[in-house]
Amino acid sequence: MQAWTEYQNENKERFLSELLDLLRIPSVSAKSEHKDDMMTCAEFVKKSLLDAGCDSAEICETAGHPIVYGEKIVDPSLPTILTYGHYDVQPADPMELWDSGPFDPVIKDGRIYARGACDDKGQVYMHVKALETMVKTGNLACNVKYIIEGEEEVGSTHLAPFLEENVEKLKADVVLVSDTSMISMDDPSIETGLRGLAYMEVEVTGPNRDLHSGVYGGAVANPITILCQMIASLHDENNHITVEGFYDKVAELTEAERTDLNKAPFDVEEYKKELGISDVWGEKGYTSLERTGIRPTLELNGIWGGYIQEGAKTVLPSQAFAKISMRLVPDQVSKEIEELFTKHFEKLAPEGITVKVTPHHGGEPAVTPTDGKAYQAAAKAIETTFGKAPIPTRGGGSIPIISLFEKTLGLKTVLMGFGLDNDNIHSPNEKYDVANYYKGIETIPHFHKNFAE
Amino acid sequence: MQAWTEYQNENKERFLSELLDLLRIPSVSAKSEHKDDMMTCAEFVKKSLLDAGCDSAEICETAGHPIVYGEKIVDPSLPTILTYGHYDVQPADPMELWDSGPFDPVIKDGRIYARGACDDKGQVYMHVKALETMVKTGNLACNVKYIIEGEEEVGSTHLAPFLEENVEKLKADVVLVSDTSMISMDDPSIETGLRGLAYMEVEVTGPNRDLHSGVYGGAVANPITILCQMIASLHDENNHITVEGFYDKVAELTEAERTDLNKAPFDVEEYKKELGISDVWGEKGYTSLERTGIRPTLELNGIWGGYIQEGAKTVLPSQAFAKISMRLVPDQVSKEIEELFTKHFEKLAPEGITVKVTPHHGGEPAVTPTDGKAYQAAAKAIETTFGKAPIPTRGGGSIPIISLFEKTLGLKTVLMGFGLDNDNIHSPNEKYDVANYYKGIETIPHFHKNFAE
Repeated sequence: MQAWTEYQNENKERFLSELLDLLRIPSVSAKSEHKDDMMTCAEFVKKSLLDAGCDSAEICETAGHPIVYGEKIVDPSLPTILTYGHYDVQPADPMELWDSGPFDPVIKDGRIYARGACDDKGQVYMHVKALETMVKTGNLACNVKYIIEGEEEVGSTHLAPFLEENVEKLKADVVLVSDTSMISMDDPSIETGLRGLAYMEVEVTGPNRDLHSGVYGGAVANPITILCQMIASLHDENNHITVEGFYDKVAELTEAERTDLNKAPFDVEEYKKELGISDVWGEKGYTSLERTGIRPTLELNGIWGGYIQEGAKTVLPSQAFAKISMRLVPDQVSKEIEELFTKHFEKLAPEGITVKVTPHHGGEPAVTPTDGKAYQAAAKAIETTFGKAPIPTRGGGSIPIISLFEKTLGLKTVLMGFGLDNDNIHSPNEKYDVANYYKGIETIPHFHKNFAE
Repeated sequence: MQAWTEYQNENKERFLSELLDLLRIPSVSAKSEHKDDMMTCAEFVKKSLLDAGCDSAEICETAGHPIVYGEKIVDPSLPTILTYGHYDVQPADPMELWDSGPFDPVIKDGRIYARGACDDKGQVYMHVKALETMVKTGNLACNVKYIIEGEEEVGSTHLAPFLEENVEKLKADVVLVSDTSMISMDDPSIETGLRGLAYMEVEVTGPNRDLHSGVYGGAVANPITILCQMIASLHDENNHITVEGFYDKVAELTEAERTDLNKAPFDVEEYKKELGISDVWGEKGYTSLERTGIRPTLELNGIWGGYIQEGAKTVLPSQAFAKISMRLVPDQVSKEIEELFTKHFEKLAPEGITVKVTPHHGGEPAVTPTDGKAYQAAAKAIETTFGKAPIPTRGGGSIPIISLFEKTLGLKTVLMGFGLDNDNIHSPNEKYDVANYYKGIETIPHFHKNFAE
């Protein structure tokens, strides 16, 4: 153990500069113009796995962006850890709100600013450098396998067939993922549940062309107005979601479970101040922690229609659009919610308006057990490096692949994430604290050691 | 009269090709990138007025886009007609919906397709060619003055000071405007009323930055959702506008006036078919003609917020925006409505959300008398060239300068427009029928002759 701490200290600067190189590749999976960048990024990840000590690494083509797979088998009788991460990132816009280029990483006040710094390149690269440490210092106590995919931000569409086709090759004892956050460096935590996702795009069409709002306004239904009315009706006055059947399968927590959940440190005044809002919002009858942890939600991610540029244009547009996503909790099922939403939304349209609802990607909610060997190994690793046992929390985000690993490979997952909630993932000025990056590299080998014991 | 018909027949093709040259200039007043094009267009108009026979023409600089002024004084004892029009056009987007370039005019099936073909370059140029006809054939029976401005589509901001500074120079007996439409070539009509306008931009702000909708969604008010709720509440279930005090000054028409108004030919089935909608929409208790003619309206002209590109992004945006315009009827006052709207909209915002409301341009509603000499001269001119007396109608659009001419110069206006409602003004594939263009050139000299008598 002494040896690996020393090795990491000696190589700290290189570990950081290599990550910056990775962050310079604009691997935006949602935009077709970045297709070549995705391949460049996959090549980078493959090479870094080989350099770190993998016996083999390969780029696995899919119908979408490629998956990078690498492995090092020390001894077939040892346990095997399958680490999952993703090299693709969210789009960077709105670009004008970045203080520095999203793909031109800078380090300021001990933080790495770049798209993907935390989600998930920074966290993926911790595993690569942890592997290097273990291999170079002769401390690799398990067999290791790595799946670093390129479509997490667009729904992991081609991961399921990849898993199904490679069940034998991917045999392991646990899945380890660093793609979540902890409360703070002072209050380390491990997420034990993640929400599922149903992401819909809606298109509302009125007249067959854009009209002059003076000549036709008032006599023809305006698709923007109608879309707003439809969206407004999706929450009632208590901010419950009105989609018929939406809550039917929601697992209610016991009072005891809710009490436990609300023990996590949370300062509503600090929260409001940090977000610049004068009040919080949400479903009546639940705390902020519950609203993001155990309750399903429906959020507007985008809306557009009509004239949206400088100045004024008196148009009554033909169409209006919105992107709407729902976070799901156990035991909601993504496909079922997509269908309930579609049916409900179509029914909301008045005469004279046609509606088209298209699902984007979805994913199932997941709860990870806290009493198994893997969670214990993670908790002990964190206690060793942070000096404090981690708090189990419920995360609001979604990593749909977790239920996929369980279904396809029969594996449980441990979510050992080192991000912070204020890392601005999916936002301008995404960052990752240098200290968290190093702490992750330091903690991961402990997990391997603990898990092997 | 024989002489001018002959002259026009001989010069038909040139009249058309000159208009196409004018349409090739992308004089979009709303976009700063077209500043130079605006000047090019003003120069074109000035030269065309001089070529047509004006004694003088000048480009009058304003704090915005320039105004072109021209005149020809035949005899100070004769009546003077002040013709008003505009050389600026609406933005052309969405560009992808045009079948040919908006500034690359084509003639197809007897129609001129180009941005500004009808609104208002085509109609302005009818006056230029009518002047040429009258001058060249020795038939100019009145003094003529021309104001062709470059800011009609952005609120005519700098026209008021121009009028005020030039009251003496602009002395006239009537204002003649061709910037409206008629029912059809078989049912010629003259608009006798136009609605006013209040055009607002609203900005709704929640958290101080874009957030991850999984991590924060459900616990923080989403500006898009809130904006939709606010917009949805602007109409009640009868499609009445809910802005407090909005209807207070609306002049109600008598039953007799409403009956008259509804005599205009209007086939609702044809209307629905032409627009591709299965039903009409609007304020309960009023017909479609009333909804666009005598009732005030509130329309969404644009909305945007969050992620609006290809694919999916799970963002809870910091802000959402909308452009909202209201058409006003006598005796509503634009400034007052702006204030009522602002007050009402600000009050709609829940805790945790801040709202900013900014007015764009506005304008007052106007009604033109049908019993005066000018209207009679126009009606007689149309009867001569169309073989049928025109129907007086109420137009839904706004030409705010009409009340301005009355207030500043004490002049009544005649709205002798030759467009058609299906000319797609403000929309992709704007067109103007070649036949309407020639009919206008033929009719305008009759107006001058009648008015001089």
